[in-house]
Amino acid sequence: MIIIGVDPGSRKCGYGILHIERNKILAAGSGIINLEKKVLLEKKLLHLSNELKLIIDQYKPNYSVVESIFYGKNIQTAFILGHIRGVVMYCLSEKDIPVYSFSPREIKKSVTGNGNATKSQVEYMIQSILNLKTPAKEDAADGLACAMCLFNRIRSSEIGYLT
Amino acid sequence: MIIIGVDPGSRKCGYGILHIERNKILAAGSGIINLEKKVLLEKKLLHLSNELKLIIDQYKPNYSVVESIFYGKNIQTAFILGHIRGVVMYCLSEKDIPVYSFSPREIKKSVTGNGNATKSQVEYMIQSILNLKTPAKEDAADGLACAMCLFNRIRSSEIGYLT
Repeated sequence: MIIIGVDPGSRKCGYGILHIERNKILAAGSGIINLEKKVLLEKKLLHLSNELKLIIDQYKPNYSVVESIFYGKNIQTAFILGHIRGVVMYCLSEKDIPVYSFSPREIKKSVTGNGNATKSQVEYMIQSILNLKTPAKEDAADGLACAMCLFNRIRSSEIGYLT
Repeated sequence: MIIIGVDPGSRKCGYGILHIERNKILAAGSGIINLEKKVLLEKKLLHLSNELKLIIDQYKPNYSVVESIFYGKNIQTAFILGHIRGVVMYCLSEKDIPVYSFSPREIKKSVTGNGNATKSQVEYMIQSILNLKTPAKEDAADGLACAMCLFNRIRSSEIGYLT
């Protein structure tokens, strides 16, 4: 079973891939899709979908997690991030991949035990759990944390067992 | 020249098509893409893109307008509408169609002369300008109003002449 986790951002979209068999993580991968600041929004969305489709075709995930963004009180930020997240969800849905959604707090709690964990605490736990030689970069670690969150829920049977 | 205007909504996306030659509107068409309330967001986005791609393939627009949504103060609404609008922009960008963006106020002002016009005033003006036998339905009229707004700007040379 392959799980992809995506952390949508307006400048960087981090993603993480977990390859799981018999409830054990066999391999993990991660990366970042960069979205250039000065590019028109519609071109950013096109670039994002092109890159994400390549990743989906490469790893063929069975399940996906897209972080439900924390946007504070800035309505304009929420609106723009919605565009990015919408295209991520569309790309996954187009390939018939079920999309799960967890909040940043749920993800942090699942990975570190603390819903208010810092970025570096999440990075440290991801490196430790996945036994990575070098830590995944911030956004990529967030993508892995998304995927880990779903895996933890499956293991604890909060979500029906996936084969 | 063909202009498509899209008014993205979380339940209904209205669209309008204008066929223009030598600065005159030769034909107009409009419709609504319905997004069912109880369907998962990712499935809604997939349905929206499937329908919109059919419309784009049918009319082959040269230019497009996507209304920049007015979302009041509700951050959750802005966030969800962002998803819808992002997928609309992606579908247009994928076909290399330039995307213009106008606010509801700009569109109303362009079509009725009044930035605070009511929905029915917009519908009335659209029916009148386009000489429609029956009025376009609310969301479809909004789609036509989006396209009209770009056409008006081209005519008044606020936007470089498009051929």
